[in-house]
Amino acid sequence: MTTPGQWRAELARLGERLPPVVPPVAAYQPARRSGSLVFTSGQLPMVDGALPQTGKLGAEVSAADGKVLARRAALNALAAVDALVGLDAVAGVVKVVGYVASDPSFTGQPAVVDGASELLGAVFGPLGAHARSAIGVAALPLDAPVEIELIVELR
Amino acid sequence: MTTPGQWRAELARLGERLPPVVPPVAAYQPARRSGSLVFTSGQLPMVDGALPQTGKLGAEVSAADGKVLARRAALNALAAVDALVGLDAVAGVVKVVGYVASDPSFTGQPAVVDGASELLGAVFGPLGAHARSAIGVAALPLDAPVEIELIVELR
Amino acid sequence: MTTPGQWRAELARLGERLPPVVPPVAAYQPARRSGSLVFTSGQLPMVDGALPQTGKLGAEVSAADGKVLARRAALNALAAVDALVGLDAVAGVVKVVGYVASDPSFTGQPAVVDGASELLGAVFGPLGAHARSAIGVAALPLDAPVEIELIVELR
Repeated sequence: MTTPGQWRAELARLGERLPPVVPPVAAYQPARRSGSLVFTSGQLPMVDGALPQTGKLGAEVSAADGKVLARRAALNALAAVDALVGLDAVAGVVKVVGYVASDPSFTGQPAVVDGASELLGAVFGPLGAHARSAIGVAALPLDAPVEIELIVELR
Repeated sequence: MTTPGQWRAELARLGERLPPVVPPVAAYQPARRSGSLVFTSGQLPMVDGALPQTGKLGAEVSAADGKVLARRAALNALAAVDALVGLDAVAGVVKVVGYVASDPSFTGQPAVVDGASELLGAVFGPLGAHARSAIGVAALPLDAPVEIELIVELR
Repeated sequence: MTTPGQWRAELARLGERLPPVVPPVAAYQPARRSGSLVFTSGQLPMVDGALPQTGKLGAEVSAADGKVLARRAALNALAAVDALVGLDAVAGVVKVVGYVASDPSFTGQPAVVDGASELLGAVFGPLGAHARSAIGVAALPLDAPVEIELIVELR
C-alpha cells in the first residue's frame, strides 16, 4: 500500500471488500490500540454471522478449504482495524498468529495460514510483510477451523 | 478505573484481593516491562501455591469451573503487574490471550476466558476493555485447565 | 550482556554460534521491527535446513530432547533478530512464547521451554530475563516438537 486508500483498490482487485465487523462472542472488543500499535482479537472466519465450515484440519476440513478460511479471518481482522482507526492509518502489518484447529496428525499449518499472509501481502504490498507464527491447536471457539490475530502499526 | 487506587475498591467489592505473586515454575519472570507496555507471563490459576483443579475442559473440568479458574489466573496476572509497576500505573488492558486446555470436542473457550475478561472489566471499567484471543490447547503446564497472559499499558 | 558484542563471547562459551537465518516456510518474514521492538516469527529447531527430530512430547520425543530443541529454536530466533537489526542493538528480551507439540497427557512444557529461556539468560545475562508463556499444542508445522517466538527490545 504505497498510498492511503490503495488498500480499497487492492481488495476490489481481489474480488473482496471489507465485511462488517464481527461482534465479539464474549466480553472483549474486536481490536485495541496502544500507542502506534493495534492488536486485534483472534478473528474467526465468520461470513454474515456464521461459520461457513467447522471442524479440524486433518479431519473434516481440507488444507485448501482451511486456506480460504484463513483469508476470510484475516479480512475480518482488517475490518476490525478499519472500524477502530481506519485502514488508511495502517503503516504495516507487524505480526500474525494463525491458530489452526488440527488433528494431531496434521502438520501443514503454514500453508493454511498463508491464506491470511497472502491477503495481507496483496492488500498492503511490501508493508504487509510480517512476522508470523502458525500453530496447530486442539480446538477453537464455535468449532472454527482457524483463528487469526494481527498486530498492525499505524502511521 | 477512573482514579488511581480504585482498582483496590473494585476488587474488594468483588470479594477479592490481590494474591501474592506466583513464583515462576522455570527460568523466567512473572512480568516484563517494555516502554509503556507490560507483558505478563502466562499465569496459571494457582491458589496458595497449588492448582485448585486440574484437567481439561470437555473432560474433567466443567465450563463453569473453567471460568472461575480463568478469573483466578487473571487475578494472578494482575498481581504480577502490581509487583512490577504497581496497578496504579495501569492505564488499561490491551490484550488478553486465554489458553484453555481442551478435549478436541470442546469449543466453548470464549465463555471460559470470560472469567478473565469480566474480572478485568469490573476492576478497570472501560479501560479494562481489551482485544482477546481464546484458544483450545492440547495441554498446559502442571495439567492446569487454563492459562492467561496479559498486555497492559501504563499511564 | 553488559557490553555490545558480549553475546558473541557468551555464545562461544556455550559452544554455539549463530546459525544462518532459517528461510520462512511460507509467505512471511523471519522477524519484523516496530519502533523499539522486534517480533520474531515462530521459529522451529531447524539445523542445516532440516528438523533433527519430529513428533510430540509425551510420545516420540523426550523432555530432555525437547529442551535441546527449544534451545535450538531460540538460537534460530536470535539469528533472525541478528539478520534484521544486529544482536548488538538488543537491549533485552521482553517475551518468549514456547509452543510444545504435546500428547494431551504431557504437562511438562515449562522444563522444555527452559531450553530457550536458559539460552537467552546465558547470552544476555540479566537483560535476557523475560516474561514467558509455555503452551502444549496439538501439532506444529513439519511435525516439529517445539516452536519459539520472541519479542526483544532495542537500545
